[in-house]
Amino acid sequence: MLGKPRRLAILAEARFTPLDAKTAVGVLRYRPEEVAAVVDSTRAGRTAQVCVGVGGDIPVLATLEEAAAAGADSLLIGVAPQGGELPAGWRVLVLQALERGWDVIAGLHAFLADDPELAAAARRGGARFHDVRRPPASRRVAARRASQVDALVVLTVGSDCNVGKMTAALELQRGLARHGTRATFVATGQTGILVADRGVAIDAVPADFVAGEIEHLVIEAARDAEVVVVEGQGSLQHPGYSGVTLGLLHGAAPVAMVLCHEAGRESVRRPGATAAESLAEPVIPPLPALIEAYERAAAWVQPCRVIGIGLNTWGMAEPEARRAVERAARETGLPATDPVRFGVEALVDAVLACRGRDRATQR
Amino acid sequence: MLGKPRRLAILAEARFTPLDAKTAVGVLRYRPEEVAAVVDSTRAGRTAQVCVGVGGDIPVLATLEEAAAAGADSLLIGVAPQGGELPAGWRVLVLQALERGWDVIAGLHAFLADDPELAAAARRGGARFHDVRRPPASRRVAARRASQVDALVVLTVGSDCNVGKMTAALELQRGLARHGTRATFVATGQTGILVADRGVAIDAVPADFVAGEIEHLVIEAARDAEVVVVEGQGSLQHPGYSGVTLGLLHGAAPVAMVLCHEAGRESVRRPGATAAESLAEPVIPPLPALIEAYERAAAWVQPCRVIGIGLNTWGMAEPEARRAVERAARETGLPATDPVRFGVEALVDAVLACRGRDRATQR
Repeated sequence: MLGKPRRLAILAEARFTPLDAKTAVGVLRYRPEEVAAVVDSTRAGRTAQVCVGVGGDIPVLATLEEAAAAGADSLLIGVAPQGGELPAGWRVLVLQALERGWDVIAGLHAFLADDPELAAAARRGGARFHDVRRPPASRRVAARRASQVDALVVLTVGSDCNVGKMTAALELQRGLARHGTRATFVATGQTGILVADRGVAIDAVPADFVAGEIEHLVIEAARDAEVVVVEGQGSLQHPGYSGVTLGLLHGAAPVAMVLCHEAGRESVRRPGATAAESLAEPVIPPLPALIEAYERAAAWVQPCRVIGIGLNTWGMAEPEARRAVERAARETGLPATDPVRFGVEALVDAVLACRGRDRATQR
Repeated sequence: MLGKPRRLAILAEARFTPLDAKTAVGVLRYRPEEVAAVVDSTRAGRTAQVCVGVGGDIPVLATLEEAAAAGADSLLIGVAPQGGELPAGWRVLVLQALERGWDVIAGLHAFLADDPELAAAARRGGARFHDVRRPPASRRVAARRASQVDALVVLTVGSDCNVGKMTAALELQRGLARHGTRATFVATGQTGILVADRGVAIDAVPADFVAGEIEHLVIEAARDAEVVVVEGQGSLQHPGYSGVTLGLLHGAAPVAMVLCHEAGRESVRRPGATAAESLAEPVIPPLPALIEAYERAAAWVQPCRVIGIGLNTWGMAEPEARRAVERAARETGLPATDPVRFGVEALVDAVLACRGRDRATQR
């Protein structure tokens, strides 16, 4: 990962849950062979599988010392909190890791390498930072160039943050590859970058260049792919992040979208919101209204259709999950699946059908 | 301007035209008393008025030396090129200004203070940089808080870049003030900041924080105003900048929008595009379709209506301009005016009517 083989200690102190430790869960799901341990003293003694449903027997330990004994040689900040600051209380753990000479990998908006105290500790320990959210210095302005590539571009979009857009995109890319299709995943967020070992955290790019940066990534990815699967961000209905979502949509200029939603989530989730604030968050519209919104917004620059639904049924019993998937398919008239739980084939078929049609007719 | 009285030389070398020298034109229109001269050797000997239609007798001169003789003590970069780089060939002029000890004011994405050669020249000359596009270090995430302010929030939106959103907003704020209404202008772009002496260049903010930053500015402005007029950016139909536009719309959470358009412009304008590329740019939809798009996009987070049309009839003969304004009013059923040419009263009346209604019914 990031230039050399690593054995990661994933820091998730007091937050090792599926919703809070999104970055940890993504890495545990897609690169478990590089994880030595998770550090969360409040859950020490359990396994990753028990805490977040992925990661198998990877142990949850109380301290960095124990993680070192388990073979760790690098520290990964396992959360992506709103605002992107290092959680209070974690600084001392990051300092400990740096003093041990461990590289520290983070996807925060607050770049660790720019922190004088941490930078000094890194120099003492001979450690390096990988702030994967740091934007490129390039200043690219989009101009619908991605719509000209020969590859089929598919974008995952969502009803909210943290509903499964990255996971759906990764599963779709892998499903297409299993089918013999040359498919490339384009990472646009910190966790996706760690999984794919490249990409740009598009939400940290100066707003003028979001669309231009993703346009560039899509064009590069399309050179060697039949299908480019782009990881979506945020949602058009999100009060804080909708601009990221629209810039990504217009810059990627996809031909097809997969709409992702967490079954049962009824309003936009704001981490850290009080109960009263949470009640006041915008209600998530029904799936057909979301589809209409995304297709209208795409058409402002380049027409594009939603071709399938990726439903995240995490936390539901299986019969309930199956009913939720069937309901989503019925409501939208589109193929639907939970790509993790029930396989991604329905979405792979939808993409291949799209590819089978004359692309010219889609524009 | 920016902390002290100044006499500006506005640098617009070979570009002193209304479309290319947008920043120069804005400062000449709203703060002419601080401008000593414009520097453009290709147009030396003319007046600002002749070249760009504002600025009266302010001279266009060939060199910084002549500008110094005319009383200049600071240099303002008078353009806002796509991509935000210092135009090639201007570096030597910026160096000359710095060696003279002139502060240099710029609204570029490429921050002059971060350029080692320029920084060294500034140290030698005892000069300072004002990179007004540099984003604040704050990391604010929006959550519809601006919708709770007591002031009426009005946002100018547009059919494209550079159609008159800043000018309409400034004219509206001044028109409301003449009417005795406490109105505040919130600057969101480099030229607006120079005119208002505060604000944030929202297009340079990391994408995650665009809505949060404007939310904060609106809440601050609303403390002492009955009406907050927010300068819009870009357009929902712009392939490069639509994300900035949507983030601004959802963060400002206005109650009313004024739609701005340049009469006669039919497709999105891309500075520097070849003729073939320009032909391929997205067509600007008719005004009613633009209104529908903005109202739908607003409603994803907070319902809001377009209450008037600001038409930029620059370059048209007066009878043609009047017909264009009448046509816009007829097509949309809304008050329309060119706020510079025909006065802003129609828009002031529309805002006051909006304020007169019970605000609760608008939500």
